[in-house]
Amino acid sequence: MTAHTERAAGRATPPSERTDTAAAGDGRTGALADALAALVGREHVRVEPGQLAAYARDATPLFHAPPDVVVFPGSTEEVAAVLRLATERGVPVIPRGAGSNLCAGTVALHGGVMLVLTRLNRVLEISPGELLARVQTGVTTAQLADAAGDAGLLYAPDPGSRTVSTVGGNVATCAGGLRGLKYGVTRNYVLGLEAVLPTGEIVRTGGRLWKDVAGYDLTRLLTGSEGTLAVITEVTVALLPKPADTGTGVAYFDSLADASRAVAAVIAAGVVPATLEFLDRKCIEAVEAFAGLGLRTDAGALLLFGDDGDPSVVAGNLARIQQVCTAAGALEVTLAENVARADALLAARRCGLPALSRLGSLTILEDATVPRHRLAEMVGRIDEIAERHGLLIATFGHAGDGNLHPTCVLDPDDTGAVERAHQAFGEIFAAALALDGTITGEHGVGAAKLPYLADRLGDDQMALLRRIKHAFDPAGILNPGKLGS
Amino acid sequence: MTAHTERAAGRATPPSERTDTAAAGDGRTGALADALAALVGREHVRVEPGQLAAYARDATPLFHAPPDVVVFPGSTEEVAAVLRLATERGVPVIPRGAGSNLCAGTVALHGGVMLVLTRLNRVLEISPGELLARVQTGVTTAQLADAAGDAGLLYAPDPGSRTVSTVGGNVATCAGGLRGLKYGVTRNYVLGLEAVLPTGEIVRTGGRLWKDVAGYDLTRLLTGSEGTLAVITEVTVALLPKPADTGTGVAYFDSLADASRAVAAVIAAGVVPATLEFLDRKCIEAVEAFAGLGLRTDAGALLLFGDDGDPSVVAGNLARIQQVCTAAGALEVTLAENVARADALLAARRCGLPALSRLGSLTILEDATVPRHRLAEMVGRIDEIAERHGLLIATFGHAGDGNLHPTCVLDPDDTGAVERAHQAFGEIFAAALALDGTITGEHGVGAAKLPYLADRLGDDQMALLRRIKHAFDPAGILNPGKLGS
Repeated sequence: MTAHTERAAGRATPPSERTDTAAAGDGRTGALADALAALVGREHVRVEPGQLAAYARDATPLFHAPPDVVVFPGSTEEVAAVLRLATERGVPVIPRGAGSNLCAGTVALHGGVMLVLTRLNRVLEISPGELLARVQTGVTTAQLADAAGDAGLLYAPDPGSRTVSTVGGNVATCAGGLRGLKYGVTRNYVLGLEAVLPTGEIVRTGGRLWKDVAGYDLTRLLTGSEGTLAVITEVTVALLPKPADTGTGVAYFDSLADASRAVAAVIAAGVVPATLEFLDRKCIEAVEAFAGLGLRTDAGALLLFGDDGDPSVVAGNLARIQQVCTAAGALEVTLAENVARADALLAARRCGLPALSRLGSLTILEDATVPRHRLAEMVGRIDEIAERHGLLIATFGHAGDGNLHPTCVLDPDDTGAVERAHQAFGEIFAAALALDGTITGEHGVGAAKLPYLADRLGDDQMALLRRIKHAFDPAGILNPGKLGS
Repeated sequence: MTAHTERAAGRATPPSERTDTAAAGDGRTGALADALAALVGREHVRVEPGQLAAYARDATPLFHAPPDVVVFPGSTEEVAAVLRLATERGVPVIPRGAGSNLCAGTVALHGGVMLVLTRLNRVLEISPGELLARVQTGVTTAQLADAAGDAGLLYAPDPGSRTVSTVGGNVATCAGGLRGLKYGVTRNYVLGLEAVLPTGEIVRTGGRLWKDVAGYDLTRLLTGSEGTLAVITEVTVALLPKPADTGTGVAYFDSLADASRAVAAVIAAGVVPATLEFLDRKCIEAVEAFAGLGLRTDAGALLLFGDDGDPSVVAGNLARIQQVCTAAGALEVTLAENVARADALLAARRCGLPALSRLGSLTILEDATVPRHRLAEMVGRIDEIAERHGLLIATFGHAGDGNLHPTCVLDPDDTGAVERAHQAFGEIFAAALALDGTITGEHGVGAAKLPYLADRLGDDQMALLRRIKHAFDPAGILNPGKLGS
């Protein structure tokens, strides 16, 4: 039995701060830190409790556990050396980018080595001729998007955390975003990866080609594998020509049911815009109180829509959406008359989470998805579940994708409320599955959703996942207690 | 040692007709046929040599070997029953759709059970509201495209074999096609699969959602796995609104180098059209002699381009491409004035293979891919290699994707020429790899490319592939001697 299995934290309930002694003073950890220092340099290894505490959490509430050591490798070869050492010693390794993960996918629940990849932060190449970019794993999404933009190109995926999240983290979670309806998610743009197996081998999957079927699709298998199969060190992504124009509008409805019907009618009209987002009444109120954007707080739901491309097509699509929303009973439909107003509308959607966070000291953001025509039904179930448990759950999300972010705001010291919130989310996931949906659309499984994964996949597929995990990671050192465990 | 490993055929050279005794009259095969008949009905099992001979080949020349039994299951449950039986008895199973595979991926090189999935041929659902279709694995690509078209929707992938190829086969090989530049390949459209593991478990991966990150991406791992990991029985694909308009044009150049520069200039101009195909001089001559389409046979290369979407955008993009090609030194650029002329131009590309096939009794179609800006360089190397080996190799393909189909036409009875062709293709693949390319862009690895796969992936990744294969198929019964072996 290795050190980390002795202190395995429970999965279904969030672990509390670990109290074992495997911290800086511990001899075993000291030896590990020395060995790591020999590989990456003493200045890139942290062992002091205060330093470890800074890496005890990611962006997921209620999950926290400090690693034994934090290490910052400076090259792919150093990553490989760290992984070889960890496999030899049976020590857990938790790969981490910006720590903006929302499913406790980057928390050291079993202690071990936190492998922080932010030093691998170079944009290696932007190729307008090949419409691709090659970056190190620790480059932020915004850095990549900006570098592409400077070359007149678009990096399409735009997760909410784009200013801080790393490209490697985006790939590891198959991050989505606000443009997913028309452009798809991170998976659709990853062409090639350099990754290090837990046993230390460096592999290059895919490459610079749109079409390449030589071998199993490891590029896409690693995309969304949440740091449990390999450590991604370099990413090649496809870029697009920058759209000539963008446009944004907003529609208010009496109810989410009306808004949901409008979404279905937009698609039925043959329009697939870049963006089709919604806020429910509670979110509209919170966002307006937070940001004062001039939103209508008497509406039951807000639909934010946007498109990009050729100016005449954008104008045509926005006019068509306006028409369809009006016919579907919208209270009001407005097109943003300028970029400033469009930015304000997009801000309304992007600030959903911070606005709700102000309402309580603990905010649990979730990520259920259903087929888009079942959106209103799903929100109805969420509201019913919240009311029954006496909880405040507001919902916003990607209406076009059916991807909902029900968000529970509560007091963390109210242990009864926290327990009721867990029950409520369990019921919300079950409701999503009953509607042909899934337990996570874009945030990932990590430790937070692992208890629900078998309900989604069934036992046979769970067993297959574990066999695949074993094919990559025979010693089970990579991100234990997460997806694949 | 099981029966099939005893008679394992060589991989690097095509196997000749098997001469072992495990045919219809063999007692072991008779018992197997009886057991299969009990599972799927006697009328859906074939054992007579004449019947087996019809399933000894797919569309790959030089590879042929009859299975011991051909079986036509009528349901997913029957597929599962056959696989369980095969795993118990250690008998190879080769899943097959239309048999249009181009890499010997559906040839029974080790004998065993040919599992023909053409009875699973129902379009289960076309959902305009959800923009998706659900079909059984044996539905043809054209059937799916037509059913989508009848509902005003587009199924984007359009492999050359679309009138006969099955959707399950398209998924198994991650088929490409003529619209790949703008629309991507089959992978980009697969939302969910029902598949049967070699050990008989029925799994459902993905589903009806665009965004779903619950678990490893088995949907994409099975896409392109060439029937070596699981048998696909049902496919859910994404559809798009049907484009309002399409347009097509043709540009002639003195040389492929000029055409290649034009392709780069089109992309640099921010235009990513649906179609950007090329024919070299030898192909133009063959196609014109075959189909009499009025092509210019004095040109060194032909570039076929097409786009679809909003009429004004299509017209604008085609005009821009015309302008760019002219500036790049095109001899002539013509836009198709009507649908009939556009169809004739597309026919020029689609009939490349049949036109070349007339020039000799054996046609070896290959599938190397390079970054698109290296297209001319690659064709130059192919020409040099062909000349050195005294072979006729003509090249056409997807210029926008850098996906080339060098096609060797020869006399199969000229064993020296066949041997030189193998040497030449080995050199062509090496050249593609040297140019950051790959050994197969859209046809697959199968048995035909397996000898070259390690050159593309390296030994570490090859070992990983075999471990993944083992995770799915511990008994190694599924399509042995192919990708993953």
